Amino acid sequence: MIDFITLCDYIGTFAFAISGIRLASAKQFDWFGAYVIGFVTAVGGGTIRDLMLNATPFWMLQTSYLWVTAFALLFVIVFRNYVIRMNNTIFIFDAIGLGLFVVVGVGKSLEFGFPMWVAICMGTITGSAGGMMRDVFINEEPLVFRKDIYALACVVGGIVYWFCLLADLSTTFTQLFAATSVILVRILAVKYHISLPVLKEDSE
Amino acid sequence: MIDFITLCDYIGTFAFAISGIRLASAKQFDWFGAYVIGFVTAVGGGTIRDLMLNATPFWMLQTSYLWVTAFALLFVIVFRNYVIRMNNTIFIFDAIGLGLFVVVGVGKSLEFGFPMWVAICMGTITGSAGGMMRDVFINEEPLVFRKDIYALACVVGGIVYWFCLLADLSTTFTQLFAATSVILVRILAVKYHISLPVLKEDSE
Amino acid sequence: MIDFITLCDYIGTFAFAISGIRLASAKQFDWFGAYVIGFVTAVGGGTIRDLMLNATPFWMLQTSYLWVTAFALLFVIVFRNYVIRMNNTIFIFDAIGLGLFVVVGVGKSLEFGFPMWVAICMGTITGSAGGMMRDVFINEEPLVFRKDIYALACVVGGIVYWFCLLADLSTTFTQLFAATSVILVRILAVKYHISLPVLKEDSE
Repeated sequence: MIDFITLCDYIGTFAFAISGIRLASAKQFDWFGAYVIGFVTAVGGGTIRDLMLNATPFWMLQTSYLWVTAFALLFVIVFRNYVIRMNNTIFIFDAIGLGLFVVVGVGKSLEFGFPMWVAICMGTITGSAGGMMRDVFINEEPLVFRKDIYALACVVGGIVYWFCLLADLSTTFTQLFAATSVILVRILAVKYHISLPVLKEDSE
Repeated sequence: MIDFITLCDYIGTFAFAISGIRLASAKQFDWFGAYVIGFVTAVGGGTIRDLMLNATPFWMLQTSYLWVTAFALLFVIVFRNYVIRMNNTIFIFDAIGLGLFVVVGVGKSLEFGFPMWVAICMGTITGSAGGMMRDVFINEEPLVFRKDIYALACVVGGIVYWFCLLADLSTTFTQLFAATSVILVRILAVKYHISLPVLKEDSE
Repeated sequence: MIDFITLCDYIGTFAFAISGIRLASAKQFDWFGAYVIGFVTAVGGGTIRDLMLNATPFWMLQTSYLWVTAFALLFVIVFRNYVIRMNNTIFIFDAIGLGLFVVVGVGKSLEFGFPMWVAICMGTITGSAGGMMRDVFINEEPLVFRKDIYALACVVGGIVYWFCLLADLSTTFTQLFAATSVILVRILAVKYHISLPVLKEDSE
């Protein structure tokens, strides 16, 4: 039986892949292209993190991420007329995945001996770089920096992780609180349309 | 004298570089920019592969790739009015390069001790990531996922490589069959306008 | 007290970050997004270099680059109505940074045992890849290859570095001459609107 963390990991991978597959389809990518974009969205952030930590990219160590992405593609193909009505469910999956990805990114960086501030950066990269790569490949401006607080939710999660460590909480509670904070920030930001202000320059 | 593999490698680099240089020129890049885009198109896939395998990027070990790209730039400058009529020849060169790049990518990954499925992924990345980077830099949506089967041809080549290994063929025949299958898939796809279906979502 | 090299490094990081922050703001990125783009512009080139050299990305070893970028963001926010009038000052800062980045990139590659031609490539990547990443993320065609000689100035700096080494100059003078040559090329190119020719293909 797979444990809870693994389950969340697959749920997150599934939701991230679906977001990539749907945006790629909207841009007339073929099935294989949609699959690749879905895969990049799901594993891109962790890959960048692993390259910076000088580790072998995590998805090269087990086939499951390729399979989950294949399942996501199948899901979009089969339920193409219903996917749009599942937006709320997919959003929750995406938030769960984001929370877990941040926690995994922070934890792995600490394991590799980096200080907390690097771990927070790596957590943020794990959570949001996949979405940035997706938007770059489908030739759109990155949504992660314009839509309801996304990348910043990763930073918040990293800081909660830090505080939990400072408070000497167990690893389990630290991970739980950090992931939950990411999920909460995302849900609140979307529900109440909270966005960061945009920087305007007097261009006159 | 250079051997057959090296010759195919240079032919492929040349063809890939030309595709980058031409698309960059169409976007009003200057000579140096066209050179860089040509170089990225030719060596980008192998570079991503080497970073993931934790190897030194292959082009940093010998100057030949810089020279072949310089030769491709010179070629486009000198024959600028004839290049368009050479499209068929360049296409064949490009297909030969793709076949070789896939074989090299698969082989190197196996040498580094990765399992076959990772090697197939790396062969596909070696063959198609350069083209994706080219399209990202010139700000176009990646062609490799929308034009006649391109990235998928790399996967096919990787699978043929696998079957040849399972059938205990010698390395030479394995490489030959795998490369030929990539080239054949590309030629057939272009000749008969075979494309993968596009995924459409009911956006209503 | 910080030394002269460190001061130039911070000045360059500051100027590069400002260019990223301003372009991101023009694209309606929120504050956090503008910060990230500023950071990527400033450290992106060195990060790519370090990944290729198989070194830990330099900004993961000290917090200063995050702080300088934060200061750049604050600067743009506070002086938003005046920044446009400071364009000349920012241009000089940017040129100083470019000169230093190239010198640092060349020096680090030589330290890692690579030959001079690789070091020149790495110096060029250090100086110009951050700007390319910035343009990719904000979904514009890379300016570094279309505006007054930018990436080529890095190559010139690398070649001057090489000649200085051949002439047995001390490290200090080598660095000084190489950085100065980059700065001079940039200032002359902008002042006299010198650009490389654009490659045109007869598309008829």
